[in-house]
Amino acid sequence: MIVDSACYRDGRRQPLEPETLDLTRLRSGEQTGDFIWMGLHEPDAAEMRRVSAMFQLHPLAVEDSLTGHQRPKVEPYDDMLFVVLKTLWYDEQRDEVETGQVAIFLGRDFVITVRQGAGVSLASVRADLEARQHLLGFGPAAVAYAVCDRIVDNYEEVAAALEDDVDEVEASVFSPERTQDTQRIYVLKREVAEVRRAVQPLRMPMQRFATAAYPFVPAESSHFFRDVADHVARVSEVIETLDMLLSTAFDAHLARISVQQNEDMRKISAWVAIAAVGTLVAGIYGMNFEHMPELHWRYGYAWALGLMACSSVFLYRVFKHSGWL
Amino acid sequence: MIVDSACYRDGRRQPLEPETLDLTRLRSGEQTGDFIWMGLHEPDAAEMRRVSAMFQLHPLAVEDSLTGHQRPKVEPYDDMLFVVLKTLWYDEQRDEVETGQVAIFLGRDFVITVRQGAGVSLASVRADLEARQHLLGFGPAAVAYAVCDRIVDNYEEVAAALEDDVDEVEASVFSPERTQDTQRIYVLKREVAEVRRAVQPLRMPMQRFATAAYPFVPAESSHFFRDVADHVARVSEVIETLDMLLSTAFDAHLARISVQQNEDMRKISAWVAIAAVGTLVAGIYGMNFEHMPELHWRYGYAWALGLMACSSVFLYRVFKHSGWL
Amino acid sequence: MIVDSACYRDGRRQPLEPETLDLTRLRSGEQTGDFIWMGLHEPDAAEMRRVSAMFQLHPLAVEDSLTGHQRPKVEPYDDMLFVVLKTLWYDEQRDEVETGQVAIFLGRDFVITVRQGAGVSLASVRADLEARQHLLGFGPAAVAYAVCDRIVDNYEEVAAALEDDVDEVEASVFSPERTQDTQRIYVLKREVAEVRRAVQPLRMPMQRFATAAYPFVPAESSHFFRDVADHVARVSEVIETLDMLLSTAFDAHLARISVQQNEDMRKISAWVAIAAVGTLVAGIYGMNFEHMPELHWRYGYAWALGLMACSSVFLYRVFKHSGWL
Amino acid sequence: MIVDSACYRDGRRQPLEPETLDLTRLRSGEQTGDFIWMGLHEPDAAEMRRVSAMFQLHPLAVEDSLTGHQRPKVEPYDDMLFVVLKTLWYDEQRDEVETGQVAIFLGRDFVITVRQGAGVSLASVRADLEARQHLLGFGPAAVAYAVCDRIVDNYEEVAAALEDDVDEVEASVFSPERTQDTQRIYVLKREVAEVRRAVQPLRMPMQRFATAAYPFVPAESSHFFRDVADHVARVSEVIETLDMLLSTAFDAHLARISVQQNEDMRKISAWVAIAAVGTLVAGIYGMNFEHMPELHWRYGYAWALGLMACSSVFLYRVFKHSGWL
Amino acid sequence: MIVDSACYRDGRRQPLEPETLDLTRLRSGEQTGDFIWMGLHEPDAAEMRRVSAMFQLHPLAVEDSLTGHQRPKVEPYDDMLFVVLKTLWYDEQRDEVETGQVAIFLGRDFVITVRQGAGVSLASVRADLEARQHLLGFGPAAVAYAVCDRIVDNYEEVAAALEDDVDEVEASVFSPERTQDTQRIYVLKREVAEVRRAVQPLRMPMQRFATAAYPFVPAESSHFFRDVADHVARVSEVIETLDMLLSTAFDAHLARISVQQNEDMRKISAWVAIAAVGTLVAGIYGMNFEHMPELHWRYGYAWALGLMACSSVFLYRVFKHSGWL
Repeated sequence: MIVDSACYRDGRRQPLEPETLDLTRLRSGEQTGDFIWMGLHEPDAAEMRRVSAMFQLHPLAVEDSLTGHQRPKVEPYDDMLFVVLKTLWYDEQRDEVETGQVAIFLGRDFVITVRQGAGVSLASVRADLEARQHLLGFGPAAVAYAVCDRIVDNYEEVAAALEDDVDEVEASVFSPERTQDTQRIYVLKREVAEVRRAVQPLRMPMQRFATAAYPFVPAESSHFFRDVADHVARVSEVIETLDMLLSTAFDAHLARISVQQNEDMRKISAWVAIAAVGTLVAGIYGMNFEHMPELHWRYGYAWALGLMACSSVFLYRVFKHSGWL
Repeated sequence: MIVDSACYRDGRRQPLEPETLDLTRLRSGEQTGDFIWMGLHEPDAAEMRRVSAMFQLHPLAVEDSLTGHQRPKVEPYDDMLFVVLKTLWYDEQRDEVETGQVAIFLGRDFVITVRQGAGVSLASVRADLEARQHLLGFGPAAVAYAVCDRIVDNYEEVAAALEDDVDEVEASVFSPERTQDTQRIYVLKREVAEVRRAVQPLRMPMQRFATAAYPFVPAESSHFFRDVADHVARVSEVIETLDMLLSTAFDAHLARISVQQNEDMRKISAWVAIAAVGTLVAGIYGMNFEHMPELHWRYGYAWALGLMACSSVFLYRVFKHSGWL
Repeated sequence: MIVDSACYRDGRRQPLEPETLDLTRLRSGEQTGDFIWMGLHEPDAAEMRRVSAMFQLHPLAVEDSLTGHQRPKVEPYDDMLFVVLKTLWYDEQRDEVETGQVAIFLGRDFVITVRQGAGVSLASVRADLEARQHLLGFGPAAVAYAVCDRIVDNYEEVAAALEDDVDEVEASVFSPERTQDTQRIYVLKREVAEVRRAVQPLRMPMQRFATAAYPFVPAESSHFFRDVADHVARVSEVIETLDMLLSTAFDAHLARISVQQNEDMRKISAWVAIAAVGTLVAGIYGMNFEHMPELHWRYGYAWALGLMACSSVFLYRVFKHSGWL
Repeated sequence: MIVDSACYRDGRRQPLEPETLDLTRLRSGEQTGDFIWMGLHEPDAAEMRRVSAMFQLHPLAVEDSLTGHQRPKVEPYDDMLFVVLKTLWYDEQRDEVETGQVAIFLGRDFVITVRQGAGVSLASVRADLEARQHLLGFGPAAVAYAVCDRIVDNYEEVAAALEDDVDEVEASVFSPERTQDTQRIYVLKREVAEVRRAVQPLRMPMQRFATAAYPFVPAESSHFFRDVADHVARVSEVIETLDMLLSTAFDAHLARISVQQNEDMRKISAWVAIAAVGTLVAGIYGMNFEHMPELHWRYGYAWALGLMACSSVFLYRVFKHSGWL
Repeated sequence: MIVDSACYRDGRRQPLEPETLDLTRLRSGEQTGDFIWMGLHEPDAAEMRRVSAMFQLHPLAVEDSLTGHQRPKVEPYDDMLFVVLKTLWYDEQRDEVETGQVAIFLGRDFVITVRQGAGVSLASVRADLEARQHLLGFGPAAVAYAVCDRIVDNYEEVAAALEDDVDEVEASVFSPERTQDTQRIYVLKREVAEVRRAVQPLRMPMQRFATAAYPFVPAESSHFFRDVADHVARVSEVIETLDMLLSTAFDAHLARISVQQNEDMRKISAWVAIAAVGTLVAGIYGMNFEHMPELHWRYGYAWALGLMACSSVFLYRVFKHSGWL
């Protein structure tokens, strides 16, 4: 579905009906700097074929833009640049990282964005960009920058959400209660791995954007891409740190299990000892000797019960003091 | 065994009897672009010697094509390019990754594929390729691309099957039942290592194909090889993630064993405590004091049994409530 | 807030009122080598906008200088160099590593330092530098060097403080007492990770400073930056070693828990055995056989109690000797 | 000891008495391509000094050839190339990897091999090489290739033997019996580390041989060295995989120990429970109540014993069913 | 303190009083190749200032030579090369690795060695070098080589001592006795880390020495530095292997603790079972049934005791046979 489409001249929007679009006229004209930005959301094959024919896009790139499971990458073709980015967002309800994809076809006088999946809205990117006329003056590269910038901003939000999750897991691991953090840590590790797979392959291409090493990217726009590259690097480092922290938290969780097992064992043993003393006393007075003075005492029975109670209380205090109970 | 053999002119097949093959005629001709594609499956040494003599293949490469345990590699010789790929497929019955090998001799006017092991069928590759005339126009490189593409597609299938296996193991590790996942995780790690050994050494050569850095690979075909290189990179990343997930799942499995041991210990201890209280009561009324009023009660025995039962039920409830039972 | 501002000529300070600052006059003059050093501490946006307009700073760099969570980096712009450093200091009270940020705008005839957060005082850097006239002769690069040097010196202090903490944890892990080091090691790992994130990204840019690969950095000052680069490398290596030691200390801590659990189990078992022998003796003399000579002994009861005591003492000694108690 | 010595002309052997060797005559001659191959086995210092004087070998290289603990390396000197290789072989009796050393001095018209330790026989290398006249035509490089090829073939054998050992350990770890695999895995890890130290440093120099980047190595022989480089790479990958598998097998072994401990504990607990029930029944009928009907039954004793037996059998079945016994 | 000082001409020593040293005369002379070697041991600041003034050393390098905790490094200055090496030696008494430092100032006609800490004696280096006149002919570089060679030889000794320690720990871990190896392994890991920090940063600069990439190092001396570089690489590999072995030994130690805990538990349980059977028998004959034939037997008591003894012996044998005792 074509979400929006417009021609930009001198940084100002000039509405455009895709049905009546005549690229030849645009290209034959002397106004260099004019360019078309067409935004699509989950187009079907037929629609994409029409767009592809209009701008003579390379079939391999078109295919990649339609399937939503590409690796993030930047590929120069003869007359265009093809960029694939994973979009990431954090589903608060499901406490999960969700992924989508944005493909960008970047030519001399056009830029086409193809979005797969929900999440990041490119409409707001367009609105923001139209408000910054001097940026639009960089031509199609400005659109690529704005899209990358927004997507990478979302990476930072996702990384921040994961940082919160790791903080929670940490608090849980070190809380005095017994907690079942194994699965939670595992799921977080899995999400961290997913974010890493979206972010890591972008580091190198964004650096190359930042040095204006790609065609159709004017050198003056390189500072902006350097800003994006910087954010990608920062997210990447945060993610590596989170991964390391999760591993350490897991080890700490294991240590806690061991410590708790030890505490349980000592607590159990202490109670067993208290019961054993009672049983021993009962056993002693259950012996059948003829000459056992206590057996004939008036309050021998009370004495025996008292002995049991006292030794139990005594042991209880000893164990309490030594930390076993 | 020679499976199929044909000469291609302008992207169209021209059948060819290998017995009557006269390379001199082909080469003396003025039709540049003609090339022969000969497909062999597990040829014996004698057959391979004949083919080798016909196309003047280098003996070291011929030897490598016959033994099925080569490293994946791309080796330029003076007048040809020698490519070795591991084929991978997933044996559903045995839940195992199987490996084979395809060797490709790529010359100016010929391409020879030598397959070892079952699995990937190159006949279907040939059929698909013959249907895409424009691709065949790239010459022998088109065949190399088509074979690589098919084999790497199989890598993706294998990786997907392993992803399913890892998901199953994950579910098993975190299921409430007691599971014996140690061996299963180990076997999966082993298979992941096997896939890595097939995929990892291909990353660099495929990148070089993608930049048309090899002879006999026309620059226009580089986009296609870039697509293959991209798939290899994606499989490689998936495999690394799976490896990491398996390690984490193993640690989680270990944590589960510890937790279960702790739970068992507490359950056992609770029952021991219940039995100990009964024994203690029995011991008390087994004492031989002269003056124990209960012993003379009419229902003293019932009282004692009731005391045992009540204290057992009481303890049972306490343990149930605190989660020990 | 502008903390201090001055013009330096031939390495000597010449006070300057920022309100009346006239850069044009400075620049039109023939005295090359004059430069302004303006130091700001947590300026608000309006203040920063004024400064930015005065020196024509790049808006992306200005934005980065205002938000306190940038990655350490060195970014060349057309007419200036932008440096971001994390400041680190060790809060003795809270036993924690705190972080701040210093951004440096380095031009031909000006240097602006923007500090975020408490901690490192740049006023003393200025005082020290003004006392070393020959250094100031290097121009704005001297200020950059002095600031980097001070900040990296602080890294070394923080690393030393962490080394002390690791030594303490080590002593605690291997002390004969039972210690709860899990959380402490975790927190230290987290702080080590924070220091690594501040230090690691600086290694490469400082190396480049050391080879005078940046503009506005005279070649003669490269030895000084090499000294800084060397300190950064040293801190980085110390941090890696600490990280490794913490991991090993954690494993050692786990091993201690296991060993202690084993010791507890043996101690408990020994006491259970001692109690069991008493109970067994009591049980034996509680049997109802007609013909049990001891039962009729005058001191049979004392004999039984003595038997219990002796066997208990005997067992106690045996266990003491074998190290179970 | 000089094992064998010969001059080769046009790939054919011409016997040569080392005592009467006159290099000047050889060198003054017009027959380029003639070269001497002298093979030594553990020569003493005096012998080596004579050889060294004859061919003017560099003293540092001579020293390295005499001590048997060098790193594998390739070092170009002004007028020769010095190669050190570790030889590896698997001692079946002792189930151990043994190491030796071969040093090769490679000049324009001579090649000297100095072997330390037992194991690989270079006599058979010479015999094989003399049967392949076309190879000998490459001159001294052919000898270097043949020796490297043989040694690296031995690496593959050692790697295969280690693979078998790892398979055995694996089978042992996952066998239902209780096994003590800790030490065996440790020893294997140690041997894998030894092989790695022999193989890893060779990867880069063999690659350089393969690109004919060294002097005295004709470009036409590069395909042969590429074959060797390929084998080195394969062994290196096998070794990395084995190392990883051993680590995983060790973890699996640890998991097994935990699981077995758990099983033991449950088995023990089950038997304790069975005994406790018997003791409880005995305790009940040992109580001294006046009114306990069972005590006066004719078959009360049998009833009590039966009660014990039945409850034991019942508990035994319960535990058997739940897998505790 | 100036330990020794001399001028060398054509490889021969010419004594020299530092007080009367006149560099101008030396430099004005036509005898190129003359150079001064001054050796200092822990000089104070004043002494160092005098030497520094005499040879015009760079203040940053001088400062580094005085503080004993520098990173190993090689820094070219305009008119000299500054080398810092860590010295390592093994204190047999304390079983510890000790560290010191040697700084080398290398100029065209002088070389100054500044040693911090005890350990390596440079006097013997000087004596050895003076005996090898051809080496001294390389000028100041010969001194640098000789010092590096000696220090790196010491690294090898330290590595060998650590290898012995690791062998001991290994033997201890796998000995049948119960050992407390945790702390020992930890301390060894720490020492290995210290050696690594001394050795690792030297690899690259020594390689550069070996390719004569530094000033004041004649190309003919490169073979000698290559020898040093080779030793550094070997030590570095040994250290990596030791680190890996220590980690594995630690894991094996952990596994042993688990296995021992399991054995203890089984041993304890067996004894508990033996005691339980005695208690059960005693309990049975303590029951108060009217009709219990054994109670009236003449030797009933002996029978009961015999039953206890027999069942205990029987159980003991069963446990012995199954390996629990």
